[in-house]
Amino acid sequence: MTDLQINGDRLHNNLKQLAHIGRTADGAISRVAFSDADIEGRVFVKEMMQRAGLSVHVDAVGNILGRRDGMDGTLRPILMGSHVDTVPNGGAYDGALGVLGAIEVVQSLAENQYETQHPIEAVAWSDEEGGLSGSRGFVGDLSEAELDLAVPGGFRLGEGINRVGGNAERVGDATRSPSAIAAYLELHVEQGGKLEAEGIDIGVVTGIVGIRHYAVTLTGTPNHAGTTPMDQRKNALLGGCEFVLAIDRVIRSIKGTHVGTVGELTVQPGVPNVIPGEVQLTVELRDLGTEKVEHIWRILTSELEVCAAKHGVVSDSAIVHSVTGVVTDRGIQDVITAAASGLGLSNCLMPSGAGHDAQNLARIAPTGMVFVPSVGGVSHTRDEYTTPEDVEHGTQVLLETLLRVDKDIGHGG
Amino acid sequence: MTDLQINGDRLHNNLKQLAHIGRTADGAISRVAFSDADIEGRVFVKEMMQRAGLSVHVDAVGNILGRRDGMDGTLRPILMGSHVDTVPNGGAYDGALGVLGAIEVVQSLAENQYETQHPIEAVAWSDEEGGLSGSRGFVGDLSEAELDLAVPGGFRLGEGINRVGGNAERVGDATRSPSAIAAYLELHVEQGGKLEAEGIDIGVVTGIVGIRHYAVTLTGTPNHAGTTPMDQRKNALLGGCEFVLAIDRVIRSIKGTHVGTVGELTVQPGVPNVIPGEVQLTVELRDLGTEKVEHIWRILTSELEVCAAKHGVVSDSAIVHSVTGVVTDRGIQDVITAAASGLGLSNCLMPSGAGHDAQNLARIAPTGMVFVPSVGGVSHTRDEYTTPEDVEHGTQVLLETLLRVDKDIGHGG
Repeated sequence: MTDLQINGDRLHNNLKQLAHIGRTADGAISRVAFSDADIEGRVFVKEMMQRAGLSVHVDAVGNILGRRDGMDGTLRPILMGSHVDTVPNGGAYDGALGVLGAIEVVQSLAENQYETQHPIEAVAWSDEEGGLSGSRGFVGDLSEAELDLAVPGGFRLGEGINRVGGNAERVGDATRSPSAIAAYLELHVEQGGKLEAEGIDIGVVTGIVGIRHYAVTLTGTPNHAGTTPMDQRKNALLGGCEFVLAIDRVIRSIKGTHVGTVGELTVQPGVPNVIPGEVQLTVELRDLGTEKVEHIWRILTSELEVCAAKHGVVSDSAIVHSVTGVVTDRGIQDVITAAASGLGLSNCLMPSGAGHDAQNLARIAPTGMVFVPSVGGVSHTRDEYTTPEDVEHGTQVLLETLLRVDKDIGHGG
Repeated sequence: MTDLQINGDRLHNNLKQLAHIGRTADGAISRVAFSDADIEGRVFVKEMMQRAGLSVHVDAVGNILGRRDGMDGTLRPILMGSHVDTVPNGGAYDGALGVLGAIEVVQSLAENQYETQHPIEAVAWSDEEGGLSGSRGFVGDLSEAELDLAVPGGFRLGEGINRVGGNAERVGDATRSPSAIAAYLELHVEQGGKLEAEGIDIGVVTGIVGIRHYAVTLTGTPNHAGTTPMDQRKNALLGGCEFVLAIDRVIRSIKGTHVGTVGELTVQPGVPNVIPGEVQLTVELRDLGTEKVEHIWRILTSELEVCAAKHGVVSDSAIVHSVTGVVTDRGIQDVITAAASGLGLSNCLMPSGAGHDAQNLARIAPTGMVFVPSVGGVSHTRDEYTTPEDVEHGTQVLLETLLRVDKDIGHGG
């Protein structure tokens, strides 16, 4: 273990200051990407980076990168970071902790005159919540067509990128080659309730789950709720409800950390005195492995037919979109585990059920991710909270992991 | 049995002519109460009444009454009728058959110089589909406050009543006392599929069901669909679906002609990647008897608690509105049954699951109602259809019933 200690008071103070930017009347935080509040938050981040001695650069897609040179000029940089944009009415920790934690780590290095072998870059990825356009641009997965799409605030993505200091005409300049990064580390709040419920300090993220989103329609016959006897009904809602319960039963009956959710369900015509003629619902499945998701969906499609037939209605389904899961680097997982254990912190391996910039970085570099508990599993609201103790634990693990990765991994390239 | 025969060709022709008024481009019929098409339909009805020798009068709430005197000047009138307004994009039979059937009956009397004991009034009640304001005004159940309420077409009910020749300042003038009517008869399409499915010609309506409409809320915890493990969810939609299926199971497990429907169900926040935090749904129960409805609701409220608890969510429910069921006159039921059987028509007793003007008339006079089959149980759409044979059967039963009631019932008053 290193003797270096992050400065908890400084970190808490920085988190508190950032949380004042974009604060709404009821205490939530709205720093939606490319908004004035986002721009103000980014100014704060750049100041913190400069104060930590980093040389700051905004790339063509709007990512903020603060660099500290290493001792070996031939080595590729190790990146650490997250994002400072939020969902509308979000909280103070999602993204912010990973950025300010990374800055705290390099500031601790600086004030202890600790020299790493590798260059270190602290990063605030742009527009995470809006669709990860910053980290996607960084790995070369942002199409020109997307620049014309509307983003919140009434302008297009390209205009948003220019607003935050990028250059929408040259987004390709932001792309780093797969061989340009030695490693990427991201500290983040769990956004789920597993760590707190199980009393575990640190989650070592094994990967970021893939997401499949399906649309399901059940079609019966809309009819008069007064004049149609019970045995002559073809009620789409009964078929739909049967299926919603079947999904939950199937998901729970299969071992693993996969999840499945019906978040949206609408009824047509949707009035009290007409038997539902049509139900549309969404099914979202998440797991690290695509095969697992496809296996579950095969079971669910046959359940869907049974549920529909039971109520005399017909069903149809289609895949709406799909994001492939990514696994983090096994070596870095081991490093994080050793770092946490060395600090006396309980830890466990776990997938991330939410998307993160790390899922893009994992495509070009060995990537590791550290989770700290979210109280009550709450996120994306003003009530999002992680204790000061857990904030410090996570950031110290990030520091320890960085130092071990800096020593351990490939000095080639 | 009488030798009098209604004229089927004339009746079909009149139905066809009326169906041209308010016809939409796709073949539906829109004669929404107080609209120009409704007014045009009413002009047609008045002409048909006059052609049948009736003296026509529009009362203060807009009902059209066509009177034919009886032989005994001391007797109260027997009324027959229905309505000619429609729902938006409705069909050609709902209401229209009862009005044109009644006119056909009195025209058959006239051309056969048949004199009844009682005066006969053919009636087209105003604004049935909009809330039965015509028949409610007739029985003294239309409040002045209602006259200020908006109706389709951009004006208030009072203005609508004036548009069709009523007098909104004197709606009380339309009210008849409970002792002023000898009997009321209404011929109507079933609007359900029972008669056709069971191959029965005539439905003898035992009453018009009461309606209870309840609002139910299930509240769980909205949470991230990716990061919240299955065993930490409080999913309001699972509780809601469990309850929807329980309602159907309970309704079917109890003997009777009652029905129960969840027609409306909404999910909050209702997006694919958030676990449903709240579900709101409507429960509509219909039966002739209030006690039966209350008995079912007691069972359902305890089911609701079980369904909510099973998924860790809480529930709440409230009654939204209630219409008390009414029973038709037992003596007139017997007369209709005898009339149908005498004509060689199969028949059965059945409640009406839909509301009708008869439910208001039943409060002041002995009331009977005759149903004829609706093909496919379809109504309130352009596909609403009753065969010419059934149209004639029903109208002949109406004629036969009228003659029997005219002879049988109370000559006092």
